[in-house]
Parts: sequence; structure tokens; C-alpha cells
Amino acid sequence: MTDKNIAPQNPQNPIVSLLCNDSPVRLERMVYQPPLIPAFREGSGSIRSLDGFSLEVLKATREQLPFVSENRLVDIIPGGARQEQSRRIGIVLSGGPAPGGHNVIAGVFEAAKRAHPDNAIIGFLAGPKGIITKKYKDIDAAIISEYKNSGGFHMLGTGRDKIDNTDKMAKCRQTCADLQLDGLVVVGGDDSNTNAAFLAEDMRDLGVQVIGVPKTIDGDLQVPGLLQVPFGYHSACMSFATEVGNLNSDCKSDLKYWHFNRLMGRSASHIALEVALQTHPNVILIGEEIEDKELTIHNVVRLIADVIVERARRGMNYGTILIPEGILEFIHEINVLIIKISYIIASYDKEAVGEESFHKLPFEDQVQLIDNHDIWRDYDSRVFLGLPTELQRGLLLPRDSHGNFQYAQVRTERILLDMVATYLRKQRGKGIYKGTFKHQNHYYGYDGRGTFPTKFDCDYGYNLGVTAFTLLANGCTGYMAAIKDVHKPLEQWRPIGIPLAPLMHLEERRGRLELVIAKQKVDLDSPAFKVLAQERIKWAQEDHYRFPGPIQFSGPCADAKPITLQLNALGL
Amino acid sequence: MTDKNIAPQNPQNPIVSLLCNDSPVRLERMVYQPPLIPAFREGSGSIRSLDGFSLEVLKATREQLPFVSENRLVDIIPGGARQEQSRRIGIVLSGGPAPGGHNVIAGVFEAAKRAHPDNAIIGFLAGPKGIITKKYKDIDAAIISEYKNSGGFHMLGTGRDKIDNTDKMAKCRQTCADLQLDGLVVVGGDDSNTNAAFLAEDMRDLGVQVIGVPKTIDGDLQVPGLLQVPFGYHSACMSFATEVGNLNSDCKSDLKYWHFNRLMGRSASHIALEVALQTHPNVILIGEEIEDKELTIHNVVRLIADVIVERARRGMNYGTILIPEGILEFIHEINVLIIKISYIIASYDKEAVGEESFHKLPFEDQVQLIDNHDIWRDYDSRVFLGLPTELQRGLLLPRDSHGNFQYAQVRTERILLDMVATYLRKQRGKGIYKGTFKHQNHYYGYDGRGTFPTKFDCDYGYNLGVTAFTLLANGCTGYMAAIKDVHKPLEQWRPIGIPLAPLMHLEERRGRLELVIAKQKVDLDSPAFKVLAQERIKWAQEDHYRFPGPIQFSGPCADAKPITLQLNALGL
Repeated sequence: MTDKNIAPQNPQNPIVSLLCNDSPVRLERMVYQPPLIPAFREGSGSIRSLDGFSLEVLKATREQLPFVSENRLVDIIPGGARQEQSRRIGIVLSGGPAPGGHNVIAGVFEAAKRAHPDNAIIGFLAGPKGIITKKYKDIDAAIISEYKNSGGFHMLGTGRDKIDNTDKMAKCRQTCADLQLDGLVVVGGDDSNTNAAFLAEDMRDLGVQVIGVPKTIDGDLQVPGLLQVPFGYHSACMSFATEVGNLNSDCKSDLKYWHFNRLMGRSASHIALEVALQTHPNVILIGEEIEDKELTIHNVVRLIADVIVERARRGMNYGTILIPEGILEFIHEINVLIIKISYIIASYDKEAVGEESFHKLPFEDQVQLIDNHDIWRDYDSRVFLGLPTELQRGLLLPRDSHGNFQYAQVRTERILLDMVATYLRKQRGKGIYKGTFKHQNHYYGYDGRGTFPTKFDCDYGYNLGVTAFTLLANGCTGYMAAIKDVHKPLEQWRPIGIPLAPLMHLEERRGRLELVIAKQKVDLDSPAFKVLAQERIKWAQEDHYRFPGPIQFSGPCADAKPITLQLNALGL
Repeated sequence: MTDKNIAPQNPQNPIVSLLCNDSPVRLERMVYQPPLIPAFREGSGSIRSLDGFSLEVLKATREQLPFVSENRLVDIIPGGARQEQSRRIGIVLSGGPAPGGHNVIAGVFEAAKRAHPDNAIIGFLAGPKGIITKKYKDIDAAIISEYKNSGGFHMLGTGRDKIDNTDKMAKCRQTCADLQLDGLVVVGGDDSNTNAAFLAEDMRDLGVQVIGVPKTIDGDLQVPGLLQVPFGYHSACMSFATEVGNLNSDCKSDLKYWHFNRLMGRSASHIALEVALQTHPNVILIGEEIEDKELTIHNVVRLIADVIVERARRGMNYGTILIPEGILEFIHEINVLIIKISYIIASYDKEAVGEESFHKLPFEDQVQLIDNHDIWRDYDSRVFLGLPTELQRGLLLPRDSHGNFQYAQVRTERILLDMVATYLRKQRGKGIYKGTFKHQNHYYGYDGRGTFPTKFDCDYGYNLGVTAFTLLANGCTGYMAAIKDVHKPLEQWRPIGIPLAPLMHLEERRGRLELVIAKQKVDLDSPAFKVLAQERIKWAQEDHYRFPGPIQFSGPCADAKPITLQLNALGL
């Protein structure tokens, strides 16, 4: 944020200059203008149908979203008619911040202004709540230049509210009508893009078109062949990779610590995969693989410990380990426990109205309650009783407002570390392990999420914004803006509009089937995973550490892209 | 580090290139050649006496180090006689890794080779232990080019052993004699440079000259007017500042989290000061100030909570807080507790030989033992009993092999967070606090310590290495290599040799007075601290976040230097 209370950088007064909120890197990034991709260089671009991809729409989707279910995949090509009337477009940032979001806004804004000087962009504040409560600000060129190429979502703020009931929908319609909007751009992940589809359906009679923009650092919003990665993923991964690479360097210098690193990324392990390929750590857990192999938590502990034992045998009592934040969700036995315990807690609290809720009970009573419940008839509660206390405590943590287990609240890296330590003590007792086990644990999440966007994400976010505007200008609604072939040089990037309806599937949410966009997990047959599976054996036993270094904005390293993106594009 | 089992970057084979251990940034940094400062551009440089600085030597130092106590401050000027005979120089990295260490070795090596092609450099492995056990490797140009400008100490490894008794000293002498060394360069902090002085004194009869090089990310090895900062400080601070800046960005976007950040830096708060000036967080604890104001732990909790309450009143339920790792040491009441508890534990363990040691006892028994001890006659044990359990547990953690309390083991940021949460609950009960207190805690230490060195630290480390060689070539021993005026452009940097003896003072170590180099604390009268004290009021109440961004190696931002260095040089 550039707070104007402090005078700008001024070489005449070194103190003022040193205390300026705009750091030298920020000042340098402010003046970077992301290049337009070819389709946008002559006018706003026009659309044509893009064939060769099979996008099927479920019956349930056709029933709930009959209007937007008619949309067909479109390609954006140069040209396009001159805009006669001015437009008013709202934009909202939704969910966790992702680097590049400010550039989406810049792309929408500058494309709109190029198309018609009277086009107006309105930014809703603090996420979808800003639409519901009509909190917004008018966006002008000064704001855009202040935030262009900066990290975070703080130009507008963000939030996790959803416009998911008739009351909220009515308020949203009212706001759009009051502000005389023609278009709304929703920047968000799978849930926000789901929301965009329903908004598009609902507001078609108002003449408000809705376009989603794919954002998520987790990397789990993808459409095979059409959307390779969402924006934000590369920057967050590079921030995490910088830190893990630094730990590689430190542990190989100090020769005495095992670093257990938990990385953000709950429902899929794309981040861990990319960070692993960037840093070559000694152990990498990939949730999807653990699920596929039906590993138990003790298998996972053993998998880590075996590497530690083998490296100790080779005289190396140090290393780095990557643990995706959502790993527990992929361990079948733990997932079953979570579901059953959530049920027990919910039913206890239902009966205990007016009395102490489950989470006010002493821990020992909670364990007793869990153990005594008749839900265990068809299952063994000893799985729960046999877990270490810290993990038990983790599993009993309060659920969120929807009754969901809060994975991010559990210090999974610490739990695994403690379980590994216990296992190693036993191995030492048997004379199998003779090393020293000193350790540190880390969690990288919010820090990486707030990083400056890489040049890739700056260019990508900006052109996604331009794509979103172009889709609106061409009358589209119920689409997600996307760019094909981002692994190729920017000259070959192809902007497209992906209809949202075919991305929907049915998923259980709050006890009933709902239409939502499916999250894309790590594909165990993908080139990126196969390369990892082959290389990691060597990385475990020897030191093949890679040090990606800090994100660069100038020089030959500024044009980096995700390694997973590049490997997957190679096909293998 | 660059493992040659994997083929080098090869544009012909994209997979091999993507999996190469040498990342693009590392490859780019490998070819960077730090410039020599003017004094070294014509020959090795020669020395002359430098006057105008008062460096007094204690009586105890004169008695223990009579030979090196004769040294006078020297300046290095261009020129110098051609070296006739070849030299053999050993180098050792000591203590925690610091970015720029590999460049010190590169500087020594390349200066030595320029002076005489037969000069040989030998690197001891895994720290001073490598000297004692004669584990080393010959350093050649290939190794230097592989590691130049890289982070960490993994070219040789490091360790914390000290050559501090007659047996170890004898082994060290033997190694130096066996390897026919003329010189030894010790790269380390205050303790290692203390060690260098004793080695210089002891090995003068062997003809082995010893030079120290000032390293520590903590920034607490300084000599007023002569050594402004040690190498490594800038890089580590910038790595931490990148992350804290990212959290600023995230919390201002997400609008719901308070981030409690513990930063490495135990005995002094230089890191927290620099990171604060780089990032403008909402609360900054500076140990030296807390000590000076004689704050209790409850005062510190209140200091944090008051900012949270005030920001909540302004509608801002988010923020960032910096906590130096060693903060407990500066809180008088806690420091007294630590000393007394250490005494109780040591005396219990002494009497309990053969029985359970203190740390095997159940926590409740430990508390009982502490409470019942008659050491509390002149003090109130209720201070201990009144602390939250997590802090009590922290204070009872096992001491290190010297009986010292291990500050880094205590999750101080979490303890303070919990105490703040408790305090806020009370304020809420009184109707004073109406905000929401969601929080995250972070520890940044090993990651930043392992970062790529900034260009400043690359140039600084390299020229310190050249300075160390030049001092050896000019017959000096018992000196620390240093460079004056590093706040100025590199063209004005002035290499000097600071005699180690005057830096020594007497300090209690393991129950007796020992000669050691005094750590430099944050000076509360320094311009940098005064600027912080003035600015932070505004930073607390409003958002003045600064986002320093990732360390840059190309472009206009590559030439950054610490803000504290620049402010202090301004004098104010």
C-alpha cells in the first residue's frame, strides 16, 4: 500500500526516502506494464466458437442453470466492433488473496478504458459481502497505477461470503441495479466461479453479465486442455520454494536439523509437487498418492522415518520434508475418523442445547464420549485411542460454521514430527537407527500467499482481466475467462471463454448434493508427478538440493514459469 | 549443491534442464564476479597504522594475550610487495551459517592466487571440529566457481565446537603443523573471533597467523566507527522482511488475522529493528528498550494488546507484530527466573546422579520442586506460579550442554499470543475491547539464514576475504578483517585490520569470568532506533505497511543496503 501521508521517495531527503512506504522494489514494479497478448492488440477482440473439446453438462446442471448451460466454448481473436455505448462493470475479489489479483483489475480497467473512455469500473469491498451491502469504490487510473503488479488483494480487500440464498441474491440484484451495472467480474476459486454461474443465471433478466476469473494459489482450479493453472499459483509456489531452498542450504551447512515443512494447499497437493520440483527435498508427501495407495498414518510416519534412518546410516542427520496442509484428508482412516467425530460432536451439541457444548468439556471427557459412542459398532474406535494425544486433540478441534473440520488449524507437521520421533526411538532401541534426530518445524502459507506476483502472474493476471472484459464486451455471461497455452511464449497465448456449466458436478455439501465446480487433484499419471516419483528416490538418499532463490523481476530469470506446467506440457 | 550426477542445464533436453540442481537464479549468480574495492586493485595491498580511534586493552587481556595485545589498528592501502614464497592458508566456518560466507572463501582464494600461483587454500570441514580432527578439503577454482555468491556454509559445513582447552589447542597446533599452514582464517561471530585471538596468541611460535572475519546474521558483532555491520545481516534481514512484508499484504487483504512473528536474533534486537524499518508493522518489540524500561512480561502483553484494542476500535482487526527470539532475556523478572531455575535444575541433577534427572519428572512435580526450593527466600516464587503453563513449561525446558537456557526452543510468539488472548478476553468482559481476535504465529530463522546473499553481502563477504588474505600477507595475526564506510559506494570502502585484543571484555561464562568479545546491543540513542520510536506510533494506529519484496540481483534494486546502516550513518 502506498500511503500518501508519507512523502514519496525523494533523493533530496534521505530519511524521507528511507521511510517511504513504497520500497525500491515496489517503485520499480509500479512502472512495469504487462504486455497485451496478440488477440488484444487490435481492438477489444471478438469471439468465435472453439471446437475440438468435449464439455458435457450434467442433467442437474441443465435443470438448475438452463440459461448458462447453453454456452459454448469460445476463442477470442483480434478485431471486434467499436463499442458504442459505455458500460459499468463491477469487480469483486473473493476468497484467499492470490498474487496477480490487482493485475486482473488493471486488465479489466485498462481494456474498458481503451474500448470507451466513459466505461466505468466499480470495485466491491471486502469480497462478496461488498455486493450484498453495497460497499464499493470507483476505480480510477491513479488507483490502478498504485496497485499494479503488487501482491495481495488489499486494493479492495477480500472475504469468503457467498451469495448463496434468495435473500443475498436479492440484495446482490438490488446493488447491481442501483449501480446500473452491465457486468460483474468475480475473481475467485472453484466456489466463487460456481457462484458466478448462479449469478449469471439469476441476473440475466437484469442484463447483468457475469464472468469468473480463475484464482487460487492451491492450483486446483484447472480445465484439462483449456486452463493449465489459475493465476497466483506460480507466485505462491515460488515464495514457498525460496524458503524451502533456503532451508536446504541451511541444513546442509549446519548438518544437524531435519526441517518438517507444512505448505498451504488443502484439497490437492499441487503446491507440494511444484515446490518439490523446485527444491529437490528429501521427503515429499503427495496427498493424492497417499490416498491412492491407501496408506495409514503409521505408513506415512514409516515412509518419513525410513528416509531418516537410511540417511543417518550414510552419515547425514539432516534434511527437508514437504507436507501438504491437507494431508490428513487423504489418509483414509483419519478421514473416516474426522467424519465420524464430526457427527458425534454435532449430535452431542444438538442434544446439549443450553448445556456445555462438546468443546467446553475437558479433553478426557471428550475422548470418553468419542470412545463410548455407538457409531463405532462397524468400526474400531481403537484407531482413535491409539493415536498420539496431539493428533487426538487436533481431530477434536472445533468445526467451522458449516460443521467442517478445519485442517489448517492442525499442526500436522508437528504431529508427524512427534510420531516420527517416537518411531525412531523404537528403531534406536532395536539398534536399527543410530543417528541424531534434531528437528525444526515450519508452516508456509499466508506469507507466500501475500508475495509480490511473479512476472508470469503479472502478465497472466493482467491478460485474464482483459479477457474477462472482452467476454463481457462480446455479450458473454456465465463464462470463466481463461488463457490457453501459457507454457508457450506470451506471443502464443490464446484467450478463451470456458462455459461454467460443464465444469459443475454434484458434491455433498452440508449434507445435501450441490452443484459445484470440481477441484482438480494432482493426476498421478501426469508427467510432473511421474518425474517426481522417479527422481525422489535419489533425492531421499543423497543431497540433490536445488536452490531456486528469490523471485526475480529483472534479468534472465524474470521469465520463469512453474516446472509442473512445463513438464505437463511436454507430454512425456 | 550442484550435484554433478545430474547433467547441467541443457536447452536441447528440456526435462534435464528443468531437473538440473542449478536453478536459473543460481546459474545467473554463479557468473557474478564481485568487484574488488580500490585498495586491492594494484597488488595485494599494504598496511599502515590508522590513528584517531581509541582502542583500549584490559589488564586481564594483556595478561592472557600479551602478544596480540600489542597489535595496533591498521589501514590497507594500494600497493604492497610482490610475494616471494608461496603460502598455505586454512579457513574455517564457525557457528550458524550466514549468507556471504562462500564469498569470504572466494575472496581469500582469489586474492591468494593473484598474489602467488602456488598459494594453497585448505578448507576445514564441519567447523572448528575439522581442525581438531584434521578433516579438510583442498579448495580449487572449480569449487570456488560452484559456490560463489551462493547462500549457506555448505561448501565446507559448519559447527559450534570451540578450541577452548589445552587438548583441543594441541590438536589444532598439530593439524596446522601437519598441513604446514602459515595462516588460518576464522569466519565467525563474537565467540569465534575470541577464539581467533587465543589461537593467534598460542600459535605465534608455530608461525601460524590467525585472522578473524566478522560474521553473524544477528548483527551484534560491531565496532563503533570501524565495523558497522557483520556480513550476513543484510541478507537474513531482507529474507525476513520479504516474508513480513508479504504478511502485511495478506492481512490487509484478508482483514482478519493478527500475525505474531518471532525473528531470529537472541542477544540483540538488530534484526527486528531492520525488519521493522523495512516493513512498518503494527507492533515491534525491541529487547534493549524493554530492558531499559524494566518492563515485566505483563507490561509487554499489555503493550501489544493496547494496539490491538485501538485498531479494533478503528475497525481494523488485523496486523503484524515483530518479536525478537531472545525477548525473554530482556525481561528482568523472566531473566531472574531463568537463572534461578537453571540453578535449581543443576543442583537437583547433581544430587540425583543415578536417579531420574529433573527433566524426566512429571511437569507437576517439576513445578512443585521449583516452588519448594529455598532459593525463593529473597524472591517471590509466585511470579513463576502466576505465569501461564506454556511459559512455565518453556522456562523448565532442558538447558544446553553448558547449562544455558535455550531461548530458541521456546515458542515465545505463541506464549505472548496466548497471554494477549487472555488479556483481550478480560478487556472484552469489561466492554473495552469489541474486536475479533483471529491470529497466526510464525517463526522466521533458519530459512532466512540460508538465503542467497544480497549483492551487498556478496561484495562485502568477498572483499572481507581479500582483506583477511591481505592482513596475512602483511604479517598480521590476532586481527579481525573489516571494511570501513560500507554505507558509502563501493569505490569508497576502506579495508582495515581491527586488533582483536581491545574488543575483549570480561563476562561470566559457566560460573567464571572469561575474556570474550562483547556483543553490541541496539543503541537506544542511535538514529535508527530514534526513527523507529518516532514512526511506530503512526504504524500502530494506521496502515503504513511497506512491502520490501524479494531480494533482487539485477536492475536498480540490486544495490540495496540495510536501512539501519544508512540511518546510523546519517548521524541525525
